[in-house]
Parts: sequence; C-alpha cells; structure tokens
Amino acid sequence: MSDFSLSVGVLGATGAVGQKFIRLLENHPWFTITKLGASERSAGKPYEVAANWIEPSPMPETVKKHVVSTCNPEAFSGVDFVFSGLDSSVAGEIEGAFAKAGIPVISNAKNYRMFDEVPLLVPEVNPDHIALIDKQNFDPNGKGFIVTNPNCVSVPLSMVLKPLQDAFTIESVVLTSMQAISGAGYPGVASLDIMGNIIPNIGGEEPKVAEEPIKLLGKLTDTKVENAEIPIQATTVRVPVIEGHTLSISVNIKEEISDVAEVLKAFKDWKNPIEDLDLPTAPKHPIFVTDDDFAPQPRKQSYDEGGMRTTIGRVRLTEVMDISLIALAHNTVRGAAGGAILNAELLAKKGYLGK
Amino acid sequence: MSDFSLSVGVLGATGAVGQKFIRLLENHPWFTITKLGASERSAGKPYEVAANWIEPSPMPETVKKHVVSTCNPEAFSGVDFVFSGLDSSVAGEIEGAFAKAGIPVISNAKNYRMFDEVPLLVPEVNPDHIALIDKQNFDPNGKGFIVTNPNCVSVPLSMVLKPLQDAFTIESVVLTSMQAISGAGYPGVASLDIMGNIIPNIGGEEPKVAEEPIKLLGKLTDTKVENAEIPIQATTVRVPVIEGHTLSISVNIKEEISDVAEVLKAFKDWKNPIEDLDLPTAPKHPIFVTDDDFAPQPRKQSYDEGGMRTTIGRVRLTEVMDISLIALAHNTVRGAAGGAILNAELLAKKGYLGK
Amino acid sequence: MSDFSLSVGVLGATGAVGQKFIRLLENHPWFTITKLGASERSAGKPYEVAANWIEPSPMPETVKKHVVSTCNPEAFSGVDFVFSGLDSSVAGEIEGAFAKAGIPVISNAKNYRMFDEVPLLVPEVNPDHIALIDKQNFDPNGKGFIVTNPNCVSVPLSMVLKPLQDAFTIESVVLTSMQAISGAGYPGVASLDIMGNIIPNIGGEEPKVAEEPIKLLGKLTDTKVENAEIPIQATTVRVPVIEGHTLSISVNIKEEISDVAEVLKAFKDWKNPIEDLDLPTAPKHPIFVTDDDFAPQPRKQSYDEGGMRTTIGRVRLTEVMDISLIALAHNTVRGAAGGAILNAELLAKKGYLGK
Amino acid sequence: MSDFSLSVGVLGATGAVGQKFIRLLENHPWFTITKLGASERSAGKPYEVAANWIEPSPMPETVKKHVVSTCNPEAFSGVDFVFSGLDSSVAGEIEGAFAKAGIPVISNAKNYRMFDEVPLLVPEVNPDHIALIDKQNFDPNGKGFIVTNPNCVSVPLSMVLKPLQDAFTIESVVLTSMQAISGAGYPGVASLDIMGNIIPNIGGEEPKVAEEPIKLLGKLTDTKVENAEIPIQATTVRVPVIEGHTLSISVNIKEEISDVAEVLKAFKDWKNPIEDLDLPTAPKHPIFVTDDDFAPQPRKQSYDEGGMRTTIGRVRLTEVMDISLIALAHNTVRGAAGGAILNAELLAKKGYLGK
Repeated sequence: MSDFSLSVGVLGATGAVGQKFIRLLENHPWFTITKLGASERSAGKPYEVAANWIEPSPMPETVKKHVVSTCNPEAFSGVDFVFSGLDSSVAGEIEGAFAKAGIPVISNAKNYRMFDEVPLLVPEVNPDHIALIDKQNFDPNGKGFIVTNPNCVSVPLSMVLKPLQDAFTIESVVLTSMQAISGAGYPGVASLDIMGNIIPNIGGEEPKVAEEPIKLLGKLTDTKVENAEIPIQATTVRVPVIEGHTLSISVNIKEEISDVAEVLKAFKDWKNPIEDLDLPTAPKHPIFVTDDDFAPQPRKQSYDEGGMRTTIGRVRLTEVMDISLIALAHNTVRGAAGGAILNAELLAKKGYLGK
Repeated sequence: MSDFSLSVGVLGATGAVGQKFIRLLENHPWFTITKLGASERSAGKPYEVAANWIEPSPMPETVKKHVVSTCNPEAFSGVDFVFSGLDSSVAGEIEGAFAKAGIPVISNAKNYRMFDEVPLLVPEVNPDHIALIDKQNFDPNGKGFIVTNPNCVSVPLSMVLKPLQDAFTIESVVLTSMQAISGAGYPGVASLDIMGNIIPNIGGEEPKVAEEPIKLLGKLTDTKVENAEIPIQATTVRVPVIEGHTLSISVNIKEEISDVAEVLKAFKDWKNPIEDLDLPTAPKHPIFVTDDDFAPQPRKQSYDEGGMRTTIGRVRLTEVMDISLIALAHNTVRGAAGGAILNAELLAKKGYLGK
Repeated sequence: MSDFSLSVGVLGATGAVGQKFIRLLENHPWFTITKLGASERSAGKPYEVAANWIEPSPMPETVKKHVVSTCNPEAFSGVDFVFSGLDSSVAGEIEGAFAKAGIPVISNAKNYRMFDEVPLLVPEVNPDHIALIDKQNFDPNGKGFIVTNPNCVSVPLSMVLKPLQDAFTIESVVLTSMQAISGAGYPGVASLDIMGNIIPNIGGEEPKVAEEPIKLLGKLTDTKVENAEIPIQATTVRVPVIEGHTLSISVNIKEEISDVAEVLKAFKDWKNPIEDLDLPTAPKHPIFVTDDDFAPQPRKQSYDEGGMRTTIGRVRLTEVMDISLIALAHNTVRGAAGGAILNAELLAKKGYLGK
Repeated sequence: MSDFSLSVGVLGATGAVGQKFIRLLENHPWFTITKLGASERSAGKPYEVAANWIEPSPMPETVKKHVVSTCNPEAFSGVDFVFSGLDSSVAGEIEGAFAKAGIPVISNAKNYRMFDEVPLLVPEVNPDHIALIDKQNFDPNGKGFIVTNPNCVSVPLSMVLKPLQDAFTIESVVLTSMQAISGAGYPGVASLDIMGNIIPNIGGEEPKVAEEPIKLLGKLTDTKVENAEIPIQATTVRVPVIEGHTLSISVNIKEEISDVAEVLKAFKDWKNPIEDLDLPTAPKHPIFVTDDDFAPQPRKQSYDEGGMRTTIGRVRLTEVMDISLIALAHNTVRGAAGGAILNAELLAKKGYLGK
C-alpha cells in the first residue's frame, strides 16, 4: 500500500514541461492527475486535441479524454496541490493566485525562485530549506504556498558543489555548460541553427546559473537563506545534443590538497540527507562518480536511474583552479519535471501536502 | 608575377591532413606539388587509386595520375621542401631523415614541436622564432631543417592570448575546448559515439594545449625559447560539429581593469607582425572580434577568410577569472594544413626556402 | 564587358530565399540589386536591421544600409525586373500587382507555377516554354509578366527525366525524396523534431512533385503546355541534412532494354539546350553521372558547380521498375534562388528583360 | 513460475550484436546466460575486460566477471542452446560446428539464412517454417540445428507484406530503406561520413533485402520452402539516425482496389499466429498502423513495445504502384538480437530447445 494518495493538477499541461510531468506521473504511486490546466486556447478541449504531444512514449490513456481547464484556482478545487510547468511570462501571476487560494504550487518556473520566503529546493542538497514555507503569507489560511526547483544547470552544479562544500571551503567556480536542445522547450531551437553547430550563448541563462546555486548552498537562518559566498562564473552554450546537460566545472578551494583521492573521498563520504525517506522518484545514487576516463556522455548516461542521477567524471587536480571535473544530468527530468516531483514527494513526506 | 616558384612534396599525402594540403595548394601562387609520399601500401600507385579522397571538393586533376612514392628523401630529390601530414607514429623518423638529407620539412606532426631548436610557429604570434632554425643541426650542409605548426587548439588559443599578453600580464588561463570531429582524422570518431553526444575527453590533447601556447608566447633567447609563465588548465571535449573548434577561454590578468573596453582595445591595438608581407594564405584579419552576442558559431564562421581567421566573441569581464570569451578557428585549415602553408610562406619570404 | 546591366529588385528580401538571392547576386555580372522589398514590419529599416541574416557568409556590404521598402510596385519603379522570394501566402497578390504594373517577376513562389500562360521554367529542360510569356495579359502594355521556377524536388527530377524522355518513352515514376531541412525555410524544422530522426511527410510537397515535372516535360502548343503523360508517385520525407535533396528514383519505360549502358548513353547523349548561351550561373555540366557506387552524397556533392549541378549515381536496371538511380541537387540554390537567377539570365539573353 | 529454465551461451559476445543479446537477456524469465564466447583475443579474460561496452545502459553485473571462452562447442557443454551474434566471416564454420556437436544455434548471422533446410524465421510471419529443422542433418543425434533470423530490413518488410499477401495477390514491391547507423555495428560508420549526410548505398544490403522476404513469405513444402514469387526492388541508404530503419514501401497488387480502407482492413484482419503463445519477448501488437500523418519516426517510435513492434504509417493508394506506406522497426532489437530471442522463445515453446 502506498504512503499517500494525493490528487494533483498540472498547470501548463500542454507545454513541453507539462507533458514531461504527465509522462513521469503516469504510474506514480502517490500522485494522481485529476486536473489539467492550460491557456484559453486549449481550455475546453480534450487533452489529446489540445496538446501537440512531443514526448517519445505515447500519451497516457488516462489523460487523453481529460478536458483541459484554464489556469484559475476555482477550476482546480479539490486537488491537493499543483505542479506548474507554466511559462515564466504567466507563471508569476497564476502561481501567486493558486497559493493565495490555498493550493500549494510545486513550480518549475523561475519567477519565485529567488524570493526570500520561497524554497529553491533540491531535496538532496537543502531539504531543510522547506522550513521557509512557514514564512510565506500568500494564503491567510496557511494552506497555499510555493516551492520551486532550480534551473536545469543549477541542479547538477549544486549537486557537485554540495559534497565539496561539506568537505572543503569553496572559493570560486568557473563553469562552461554544454546544454541540450530540449532545454529550450518546443519548438525551441531551429534545426538550421544547431545541427552540426554550437551556439555560444543561451539568453538569460548565465545569471540564473550564478545566482541559484548559492541560494541552494546557502544557510537557513530564522528569516531567510543566507547565500553561500561562492562567485560562480558561467559560460552557457547550446550543443546538438537532445537530452542531458554536460558541465565542465572548475573549483577553487581554500585548502591545499595534493591528491585527487581527497576529492573523491569528499564525494564518497557525502551523506544523502533523504536516503532513508524512500521517496519514489529519488535515485539510489543521486551522485555517481565514474572512473571511466571518457564518461559521462549525455546520450549514454543521461537516463541512468531514470534520469535523476548526476554523473561525475574526469575528476582531476588542476593547476589554475584546484579541482576540475565533468558533470552530467538529464535536463528535463532531474533539471525540471522530475526534480519538481521529487520536491513534492519530500513535501508530502514532511507533511506539507494533503493537509 | 608571383614572388616564388617552388616545387614541394607532400608526406603522408593520402591521409586526411595530406589531402587538405593537396586541396589548399591546388591553386597556390608560389608552391607547386611535384612529389607525393605515403606508406609502402600506397607507393607505386597513382594518387587517385591510392587515396580514399574525403575532401568535399573533387580531387584536383593535377594529382590524380601522380604516382605515389614512399617517404624517403631520395624519392623527393629536386623538391625545394616538403609539407608533412604524417602520423606521429612515423613522423619522428621520416621528418628527421628528410631534414638530415637537406630537405626542409614544414610539419603538422607533433613530434618535433617541443624540441628546443625547432620553431613551433604561428606567423602572427611568433615570427621571430624562425631564427631557431639556425640552431638546428640535422643537416651538416645547413639546408635541411624542421619547422612545426601547433595543435589545432593551440593556434586559436595563442592567437587570443598574444594581444592580451602584449597589453596585460597574463597570470593564468582556464579553457574548455569543444572540438570538431574532423580533428580526429579519418575514419576517426565513430558516428555511434558522437551523434547527439559529447565525449568529455580527447586522448593526449590536454597536455599539448597546455604546453604549446607557452612556447608560442615565449621569448626567444640566444639558444632557445624561454616559455611564457602562464599556467593553462584545459578540458578538451569532442562535439558533433564537423569543422571548427570552439574555445571557452577564461584569463586571469595581473592588472585591475574595470571596463571590457580595455580588453577590446587590446585586440584592436594588436599589430599583426606579418601584415605587410603579402603572404598569399595570410588572412587580412587574423583576429576578428565580433559584437554579435551569439557568435562565433563553428558551422557559420569557420570558413571566414578561407578558414584562416580566429573569430572572438562574447568578450566579458568576469568575477572569478578576469576575462571570459569564446574563440573559434577552423581546425583542419588554420589549425593544421593551412597553418603549415602559411608557415612555409613566411619562411619563403624570409629566404629560408628555395635556397 | 558584360552583356547586360540590369537593375533588379528582390521581393521578400528578408526571408530565407530572399537572403539567398542577395548572396548569389552579390557579384553577378549582369544584375545589380537596387531595391529590397519586405513586409510592413521591415519597411523603412536598413536591411541589416530588418533582416535576421542566416546565410553562412557575411551579409554583403552593398545591402547593409539599403532601406527596405514594402512590396508595392510604385516603390520599385526603375528596376528592370524583380526576383520574388515571397511566401506563398502573399505572393499571389503581390506578384500579380507587379506584373500588372509592367514589372517582370521572376518568382520562386508556387502560386503561379501551374497557370497555363505562366512558364514553369528550368532552362536546361524547357527553354522553349518562355514563349508562353506572350500569352500573358497581366499588363496591357506587354511589359510585365511572371516566370516561375519549380519546387526544389521537381528541378532534379525533371533534370533526370528529360534525357530519359528524349531517349525512351517514360511510362511511370516512383520517387522517395529525402529532403534537407533548409527546404523548410527559417526557423523551419524544430531541432527536437529532426535531429537523429526522419519525418516521413512534408506537408503539401507530394502533389507539387507529381504535377510540376509533367508540365516541365510537357509539349508547348499554340496556347499552353500539354503536360507529359507520366504518372509520378512521390513520397517526400525530411532528413537531418542541411542542404541537398537526395532522390531515390525508379522509372518505368516502354522500351525493353537489357544493358544499363543504354541508360548511361541517354544521359551522355543529352544535349544541353542552353550550352552555347554563356549564361553566368549556368553549370558547365547540369547533369553529372558518377560511377562512384557511394555517390552522390548531399554534404559532399551539393555544392559542385556552385550548387547548380544535378548529380546522378547508382544507375541500375531493376526488376520491378526498369531503371533505378539516385539524384542529388542543392535545394536552395538549384532548387530555388539559383534556379530563378538562371531563369532571369535566359530571359535576359532572349530579350525579355530590360526592354 | 516461468515456463522454462534454459541455460544459454552467446557466441560473439563482445560484438555489438552480442552485447545487445546480453542486455536483452538480462532479466529474461526463461533464458539464463551461462557461457560467453568470443575470439582468441578475448578468451580467458573477464567479460568486463574483454568487451568495449557500447550499450547505453550499464553492463549487467551478472556478466562482468564471467570469463570469456573461445567459440568452440567443447567450451559450451552444458548449455541448452546458443545465440550467435558472430560476424559472417566466421559464423559459417563456428555455427556449423556447434550444430554438429548437438548444440542448437539461434543465429543472427547471414551465413545459413538461405540454406534450404534452415528456417529463416520471423515468428509472426512464418512460424510453420520451423518444421524445416527436422530436415537438417548437421547432428546425427538430431539435437543440434540452426535457425536464423533475417536482415534488419527484411523483418519489417515481411511484417508489412504478410497481411497484404494474406488479403491480396502481391505482384511486386519497390523499396527505399533509410537505415540507421547502428545497423553497421561498431565502430561502423565514420562520423565524418554520415553527420548531416546520406550515403546512398549499403554494401551487400540490397540483395539480402530482395531475397530474404520471399523465403519468409514462401510456402513450406515437404522438403523446403518454395519462395514467394514477388520481385522486390530495393534501394538501401544510410541516414544519420541512431536506431530504427525507415522503409518507404510501394506494393503492386493484382486486385483492383479503390479505397485505402481495404488496405487498412488487411492489416486489421491479420491474425498474429503466435498471439496465444505468451512468448515473453513477443509484442502485443507486432504490427501497429498509425493514422498520424507524420508518423512513424525512428527517434520517436522505434522503442515502442520494447523495440519489437513494426509501425506502419502513411498508408495510401497510389497511381503507379497500388499501395504506398512507411514502415519502421528497431533494427538492432526487432531486426537482430530481439528477433533471435523471440525465435528461441517460439522454439522453446514448440519443444525444440532443452530436450
């Protein structure tokens, strides 16, 4: 018997992230989709008509005939909470309205990520930050709140930095991220722009990648999260890869270390704080360090452990920055819908959902 | 009327680099191919039979019926010099034998690059290093010598660093290079390994990229080149791009600068030392700084100025390292055969060839 | 000295086809661009501001500062004729207005291709069809007219069928065309749809491919073109290729033939009707039959002879249909802007332009 | 409880097909790998050392430490049968030796496919052909025999033709197959040859595609299979797709039909002959006809039903040939290792294995 039986809505259900939510929730043991919300244009239509399904596996039968609503809280009465895959152009207003109406919002949108009282959450990195929820005052009745997951690069970057932060004093980070086309949504990147090519910039990405990890790695105080003091310099580029972001990360640490084994030990000794919670979507090894000198590779390792693992390879001591490595994570699973679902599982376990 | 009329041989003529030499020399105003050398297996055959032609434009008529020789100096008597596109497994011995036999070798192979008395040459970066030739003693008669061009990443990296070195004191460099498949020769990278994928390592590449630029940027003394003291930390990865290496470069400098205009000025003020020599293969703008925020892109800019230009974009002042930018160069033209041809042109102009 | 000096306008100048016109006309010996037309949104802006330039070589300096007009004939007074790269949603009305206003229109759009009095023209296939122009009555003064070039598949298909039609009686054709992404314009095909994939259908393509070649291969009568009676069955699919459409063509002929040499002879004996006209854009060998068993390949042969050649390979006698072969042509040069320019050159030579 | 518990060997275990066997058998309910065979070079080494693992999911723990043998029957004593993923250069001799030694061979190699007494088997198409086994005399004791599965194109082609053969009289077939790179094994196709390109020929493929389906569709007589009299004309090309062969198929039938519904009915009415056998690897719908006008697509549908389904789309009545459609199947699962495993399951169920 499963621990929970919660009914959920999906906001932005016809978009790329919304579709990923629907697919990942298809056989979820705790959460059952009971409402789908999208724009006016889709409202009133069966989901199979409203959505241009782009997921590789077939549309679940359970949602095909489901009639899509607009994204207003009244239409979602009865759900225990909603996942939001809304575009940032509308997420601010709609998510706020849902929280105000008493419906918890587990959001993948960027709008509320840097709000003081909103947890920017990666369960393996900063599960304690969920205490911020109590600071929120969207809903006078205290039921509605917002929890966000970070950008698809910030997730593996914070997963890499957390064990290093636990073991050392991180002074700075230099990052070049090689990002898959699926990160741009659909239709997203034109094939004429990216086939056999690299686009050396992703609009608006670099600031997010510099800001979000230091909140994730920050220390929870009584009133807010005190950001970690780690300058992160990011260059984000688009590569002709379908799924899986590859990060070339260099880290300066305060300590003098002379053996790469000390770095490997930091990863090995790291204790996964949610290891014992048995969350359905949690990977057994959220961090996996490989000694294959030609790994990780996005086409080959992105789907390991259901796309929820961060794989780390090529760990080296280097001359300019102290540590260099390559990290890989699935950008639309771990870095988006899958990450949000894991957040909801943690919140359910901790008693924040289904009250 | 052209300045020179020199007859040249090509060593390793059937390989990927050899083919590029043949194509780039097809209409060269100074150099005419008169000898083609390859392995025993190819020797005695017409070139069109011996070579599996992989260049996109058709095999030049002039070489089709040319009978391939083995790579021994006797077979090349009469040439003014040779270009070497030999594999490093054989280049050491063969190039040495040619130099000893009085035949200058303009080589793309790595074997002699780091020899004290062998110039590692990029004409726009260190043309004065050709004086090292006089230190060589391969040939007692003083006619044979070896000059090398650097690795395909070291070329654009040194092209970027030279103007910065002239304007500032460079303290360190962090590099992630995203390298095209053509850099691996033919058949090279298996399609199953690289389509829609990234391979986060290129065997043997990172040490070359760290060592060669500091020789290129070094100071010529009486007896050798004193390497520049610039630690370079490199991560080299393979991407599904056909031609054009893209470099994400971060540079620490000693000076405090507060405006990116100072960096742009360094590039602008840089004086191309071979500007007035009218070398046929020399690009008019060996360095081109673009303000297009989404450039350079390998598929779109690699061929600018015949593939001999280094294009620089996204120049930024950054927090961890001081300067961040993206550089692009055509790896098999500027970074291999084209670079070697430009080297030969400089040497011809300076009186080292055709004596 | 060149034969002609004509001033031309380009309609739809900011689109993908319009850009190709501009690049191909950059150094044209007869035609000089003096007007650029686009939509209301672009009108009044310098071309470099109005256009999102996607051609791989840099935007010609000559058009950068050129102020874009709307596509109305008044704005184009003074041009000798216009090229139209307009989208079919607007081409019908605009091209008609230009012709009515006395300005010849050399169009790449599909709208007028099947009109009885409008030549659908491939100079090497049906140059006599230009006589249809005299039947047109767009312009009472007899100066304005419309000439069209066919779809990017119809060009190589008719180039293949013309020599066969001359030598044999063609009974039927079965075609599977594997079409490059550039055929869909920009932004065109989403990378998420086509990378590592095939889309087994191209909306609206198959009827064009069946209809246009039989007009091209038709016989000019007093009043119209009598279509050839050749049923063509087409399956058109999209493949992850950037430029160059590859056609797998099977042809039934009435004659019994027992040796593939008879087919090869048909191609060899074919007489190019415009061979002696010295048209600047005309390829020396509009049809090139290769005996390389692994050719033609789009990435390697599309650009041969400036992208104006149709390359044919793998000519075989087969059991079900009689003849099987592979044909390749550059879809946006030969199959679009380049084809239109060649049409204009023929018309200029024949006295239809610049009157 | 499972129906069978058979121990199996894998010949050619380190190759691409061998690896696919190992992965697909990882959790097989009936078959357990107990022996791995490869070349002399690999023999004596643990599998994890001998194999360059290229499958996307990790190497099963169960085989990692398994010491590889050479492919001689003595080393495989005790297995109930072997799967052969051997290269055709050695499969003839080795498979014959195993059969002679009393070990049934379920082979993916081409060597014995066209032997009169060897079943070329697709369970859904010609399950009755297994009776041929009784005609074999490799093994005087009657235990050893050879059963083969067809080429990766012949599988979906025969799956498409079988229902049409049941409903109509097929007169001829014209095929253009667009084949994934994984069909060439590893390292297989060079990335420089196929990225953004099409190779319009696959050496040796076209004869197989013409011959095998007519044996598959042939009628079993007392002594052999009488081939179907269906001329098949094939053009096989390589496309930049990783997995999934796409077939553009045209079929002439004797009957006059005027409605595509008659064709759709033929597929619908077709009775899967192994439907009731509950074979573990059998797809529920071995043929799936989609009405999505832009399906099937290799990257999106190849893995449906574990890669064992043939998906058919774009069914049309056409003018030259009568029926046109697109078919897709996973080339290395359904078209290779998965097909062989299904063959073994059928043979087990029918009592031919584990005797």
